[in-house]
Amino acid sequence: MDRIALIVEYDGTNYCGWQIQKNGISVQQRLEEALEKALKVKTPVVGAGRTDARVHALGQVAHFDADTDIPPDKFFYVLNTLLPDDIRIKRSFAAPEGFHARFSAKGKHYQYRIRNTREKGAVDRLYTMFVPVPLDIGKIREAAAYIEGEHDFAAFCAAGSDLKGTTVRTVYSVDAVKEGGYITIDVKGNGFLYNMVRIIAGTLIAVGKGKLAPEAVRAAIEAKDRTLAGATAQAQGLFLMEVYY
Amino acid sequence: MDRIALIVEYDGTNYCGWQIQKNGISVQQRLEEALEKALKVKTPVVGAGRTDARVHALGQVAHFDADTDIPPDKFFYVLNTLLPDDIRIKRSFAAPEGFHARFSAKGKHYQYRIRNTREKGAVDRLYTMFVPVPLDIGKIREAAAYIEGEHDFAAFCAAGSDLKGTTVRTVYSVDAVKEGGYITIDVKGNGFLYNMVRIIAGTLIAVGKGKLAPEAVRAAIEAKDRTLAGATAQAQGLFLMEVYY
Repeated sequence: MDRIALIVEYDGTNYCGWQIQKNGISVQQRLEEALEKALKVKTPVVGAGRTDARVHALGQVAHFDADTDIPPDKFFYVLNTLLPDDIRIKRSFAAPEGFHARFSAKGKHYQYRIRNTREKGAVDRLYTMFVPVPLDIGKIREAAAYIEGEHDFAAFCAAGSDLKGTTVRTVYSVDAVKEGGYITIDVKGNGFLYNMVRIIAGTLIAVGKGKLAPEAVRAAIEAKDRTLAGATAQAQGLFLMEVYY
Repeated sequence: MDRIALIVEYDGTNYCGWQIQKNGISVQQRLEEALEKALKVKTPVVGAGRTDARVHALGQVAHFDADTDIPPDKFFYVLNTLLPDDIRIKRSFAAPEGFHARFSAKGKHYQYRIRNTREKGAVDRLYTMFVPVPLDIGKIREAAAYIEGEHDFAAFCAAGSDLKGTTVRTVYSVDAVKEGGYITIDVKGNGFLYNMVRIIAGTLIAVGKGKLAPEAVRAAIEAKDRTLAGATAQAQGLFLMEVYY
C-alpha cells in the first residue's frame, strides 16, 4: 500500500463541512466518491482537520492509502476530472514515511476576510463576513496581541464541547490588516479547539466595535470563561489557508 | 414623477444576464419585482447596458420613475431588504435633470479577471476566467496598445449582430496587469459593440498564448474581419466596474 497526500482547495458554500455527516454532503464524501471511481475500491480519506459548513479551504491536507499503479502526482489529474468544480486538488504526491494528515500536523493557518463597509457585497457575499459597523483596527490589533502565545484557551472553545485533554494551545500570531473596506485577520497556531478561530474573530470584532475593551480579552483568557469572550463569528469569510508539518 | 438612479452590484452566476428574458431569471426582473413590492405598482427599470449570463457587475447603473413619498436615498434600504443576496443596491439618489441610465452614459469600464495557473481554483471559479497555459503579459500589452483609440471595431463584434449604425468606438485604455497567478485586464471606452469586451479579451489571450502575433490585432481591426480576431472569451471573470456619465 502507498500513502498519497493531497493538497485540497474547496468552496465550502454548498457543503456541510469537511467531515462526512448523515445530513448533508461533505467535502470528504465527495473525495471518497471520486477515489472510489478512480481506484474501484472504497478508500477512506483522512483530513488534517474539520472545517465547518460554508468555511472554505485553500490548503486543506488529506491522505489516503492505495494499492495502485497510478503514480502519486497523477492523482492531481485523475481526481480533478472526477470531482465537482468547487473541490480542486492543488497537488498530489507520495506521502513522506510515517506521514499522517491529522497526527503529523504541527499547526494551521486560518484567515478571516471581513467586509467592513456600509453596504453588503453581492459578489463577495459568500467569501467575506459582513460587518457594517466601522471597526477600530488599532483596538483589534491591541486585543490580538493578548491572544498570541501559549495560553489556556478554554474561554475560546464552544460551550458544551466534548473536551478530551488540555485546552492549552499556542497561537503563533494574530495579524489584522485593513485595506480599503476589507479587514483580514490571519491566525496561526499549533492547534485550535472547536470553534476557537471563530470565537477569536467574534471577540476581535466585538473589540473593534468598542463593545469589549482590548484588555477584556486578556481577562477572558485568564478567567477561562467562555461568557467573557465574544460571540462565535459566522462561517462565511473563514478560510483554512495552510497546514504546517 | 421623480426619477431615481441606482448603482447596482450583482453576482451574475445565477442569472441569464441583466435584461429580462423569457427563459431564465434576469437581474432586471428581480429589481422590478422588488420595486413593485416597494411601490405597489409595476415599475420598469432601465439599465445602462446589458450584461451576459454569468457576467458580474460592481457598478451597473439603472433608473426608474416613481410617484412616491420614499426619499430617493432610502431606496438603498428598501430595495436591499426586498432583493436577493446576490443583487445589492450600493447607492440610490435623485437622478439629475434629464438623466437617463442608458442614453446619458458616456462610457464604461469593464474588467476581466484571469486565473493563469496550472490548477483551476475552487473558490474563485465563478469570478475568474481560467487559462492554464502561461500567458506572455508583455505581448498582451503590446497587442492592447493597438486596441486603444478610435477604431472601427467591426472585427470585434459578434457575428450575426443586428448592427444599427456605426461600429466605430473609442477605447480609452486597455491595461493588463499580472499579479501572482492572476492577470487583470481593464478596458475603458465610450461604448462597446455586442460581445466586444469578450472578443477583446479572447484576442488578447490568444496573443498571450502565442497563437496570434500582437500585430495581428492591428491587422484584424484594419480588415474589419471577425475571423481575424480571437475567440469570444467566456463570461466568468468579466465585471462591469463603472458607467461614466
